[in-house]
Amino acid sequence: MTPGQQPISQPQRIDRYVGQYAERAVGMVASEIRALFAVAARPEIVSLAGGSPYVAALPLDAVGDMIGQLIADQGATALQYCTAQGDAGLRERICDVMALEQIRAHPDEVVVTVGSQQALDLMARIFIDPGDVVLVEAPSYVGALGAFASYQADMVHVAMDEDGLIPEALEEAIRRVAATGRQAKFLYTVPNFHNPAGVTLAVGRRHRILDICHRAGLLVVEDNPYGLLGFDGDPMRALRADDTDGVVYLGTFSKTFAAGVRVGWAVAPAAIREKLILAAESAVLCHSSFAQLTVREYLNTQPWQEQVKDFRELYRERRDATLGALARMMPPECGWTRPAGGFYVWLRLPGGINAKAMLPRAISSRVAYVPGTGFYADGSGSQYARLCYSLPAPDRISEGVRRLAAVIETEVQLRDDFGPAPVPSKGHISKS
Amino acid sequence: MTPGQQPISQPQRIDRYVGQYAERAVGMVASEIRALFAVAARPEIVSLAGGSPYVAALPLDAVGDMIGQLIADQGATALQYCTAQGDAGLRERICDVMALEQIRAHPDEVVVTVGSQQALDLMARIFIDPGDVVLVEAPSYVGALGAFASYQADMVHVAMDEDGLIPEALEEAIRRVAATGRQAKFLYTVPNFHNPAGVTLAVGRRHRILDICHRAGLLVVEDNPYGLLGFDGDPMRALRADDTDGVVYLGTFSKTFAAGVRVGWAVAPAAIREKLILAAESAVLCHSSFAQLTVREYLNTQPWQEQVKDFRELYRERRDATLGALARMMPPECGWTRPAGGFYVWLRLPGGINAKAMLPRAISSRVAYVPGTGFYADGSGSQYARLCYSLPAPDRISEGVRRLAAVIETEVQLRDDFGPAPVPSKGHISKS
Repeated sequence: MTPGQQPISQPQRIDRYVGQYAERAVGMVASEIRALFAVAARPEIVSLAGGSPYVAALPLDAVGDMIGQLIADQGATALQYCTAQGDAGLRERICDVMALEQIRAHPDEVVVTVGSQQALDLMARIFIDPGDVVLVEAPSYVGALGAFASYQADMVHVAMDEDGLIPEALEEAIRRVAATGRQAKFLYTVPNFHNPAGVTLAVGRRHRILDICHRAGLLVVEDNPYGLLGFDGDPMRALRADDTDGVVYLGTFSKTFAAGVRVGWAVAPAAIREKLILAAESAVLCHSSFAQLTVREYLNTQPWQEQVKDFRELYRERRDATLGALARMMPPECGWTRPAGGFYVWLRLPGGINAKAMLPRAISSRVAYVPGTGFYADGSGSQYARLCYSLPAPDRISEGVRRLAAVIETEVQLRDDFGPAPVPSKGHISKS
Repeated sequence: MTPGQQPISQPQRIDRYVGQYAERAVGMVASEIRALFAVAARPEIVSLAGGSPYVAALPLDAVGDMIGQLIADQGATALQYCTAQGDAGLRERICDVMALEQIRAHPDEVVVTVGSQQALDLMARIFIDPGDVVLVEAPSYVGALGAFASYQADMVHVAMDEDGLIPEALEEAIRRVAATGRQAKFLYTVPNFHNPAGVTLAVGRRHRILDICHRAGLLVVEDNPYGLLGFDGDPMRALRADDTDGVVYLGTFSKTFAAGVRVGWAVAPAAIREKLILAAESAVLCHSSFAQLTVREYLNTQPWQEQVKDFRELYRERRDATLGALARMMPPECGWTRPAGGFYVWLRLPGGINAKAMLPRAISSRVAYVPGTGFYADGSGSQYARLCYSLPAPDRISEGVRRLAAVIETEVQLRDDFGPAPVPSKGHISKS
């Protein structure tokens, strides 16, 4: 390779484009979850890491027949381009799904996205200039933090407790940002069965949060992948149900049907929706008709609400296995949340134990989790771990917790013998 | 709605978020193609507008059976999350496809994307800071211009003729950019059966183009959606086949299998590839396993090369119908390109006729096309129209050209009676 117009004195570089990347790409690093996937997928390891739904519970023969028929009958549409907003028939069915959470929406208000992740990306794309503030929970979903970070957002964490986002902490964060002469672009929140915290925003707090945001002129991004997977009673009323002008709602079929179809959606006020559609067109031209019509057909022809009920029972059993095992086996200094739905328990380790430093030893003991630091943009969370119970069978969960408890006990022993490693401790959720 | 912290004197706005969008979102406007889709889809209109493949030619029953079986047998994988790089088995098959264009690539070098459009978006995302220069052909693919514009690129057009990109024009553009103290981030080119120009980069120019770029340290983005759809002889040798370090190659199954699965890919030097994977993860978490495994299965079990041959014959017949009708019916002042493959003819209108202004009258006459201005970032192209012949049957194409010729004749008559409208004329491809 000739050096071209590069200065001759410059040393040869492995990446000849290293000086040419956009500023936003310079800091791109692999997420902690991504780095884990390869190892955690080995069968001898009990993975409490990745948040994958248990899609094997679907009636695969029936779904296969349905899709085969769809292609035979409507292949010329299902295999063709679609509009950037998404299939109109699917958007109608999405409105039915949201009605279960008391949202009244018209299909015209819905934008179909490549999973909720694309909706997060598009929201960041249309709102975030470098240095703009976004309020996020402490902890917050790693994929959202990644999307916002890739647009160089300045993420400000807002504390949660067992009842979800703390209204006073939100007010205080808004004040703190205002004191720097700025206004946050939006608040990103997962109100139900939080990823990773496993907590749910209490009913009594919901109007309060909306009111605070409304008074501050602060847009709310309500991300609700797990809303239909609650273990007790009816689905919670969505924030969007009480504020159509101030809330962008994000939904997905990843957990209620299949993550592999990558079908999510956003419902947004008209002007934002128009920008989302244009941004989606720029990003991927249009979503897959194939995936969209598959989901539409699934909702139209299969007993999907029964299937969601089956998923709920399945995940409830796994949640119970997790909490039972934690109560029986974890060392006394540990604490954890008690999710009323969804996939996740947020585990607080004993003081001085660093979840990231411990991970290689856990994997040696054939159990995997996600260290808490991945869910913070400010480097905190090292004393926490996310445990996901959605994929392993209950007895495997118990075995995984047993292994993890033994690893933690060894860590505690080391700490007591040699003293704690210096670890920041800024987590906000403690054992109730 | 209470005004919250908005100044009280401010008038009420339809979009309360109007002051809060990111700079990149302020100028987002609907593409000319998008605005056309709704109208052009009406059955009485002969649409020579949208570039949709004729997917109805696929053996839909066989494809349906194949997918049904895939879900029944491998649904737990096909409906689950995947890695951000994409399914390894599919990436192997992609290497086989590229081998037809003399590219030798390892599956590790491939990143699966949501159509080529996502690859364009990701390339822009990792390379373009606001104001950065990208070299694009004149004209260039509207979706690429949109993706680059959304990252606020400064697009500099490089002239083409019937043999594609003109080497001297490329050298001159590089000099012109250098004279402003800048260096372009990359050259974006569609070497084969260009969209919209319908021309192909001559064999004799390919090394010359690569050499110019190499000497200038200029990365090449080779977008090749139509490479296997040539009407004469074997596929052209890809630019990537002769420069693995300086070329990012983009491919797609949209035209050789099905646009509706949204499966494309990028092959890039290692460091760029890593950034693409991280950017893809941030954008959509991962591509659809469902779509990827469908394509993998299609390539593994169906006679896909025979199908591509069928598509070639089908599109050749439509190209012939288009060129025949144009020769018979167009007014003498018109000119057009003669594509040796792909979907598009680039039509030059008589002097003083504006394709965008004429479009409503064309649609009234039940024929649609895309005005040339959509394919330029600098406002030129108004004397040109893109005609796409992939979707209508040959007799419908002839009828569409007949209607269009009549519209143009009326325009010419109006021009001759009242004088031409003041129209910039910067197009670079003329009738051979």
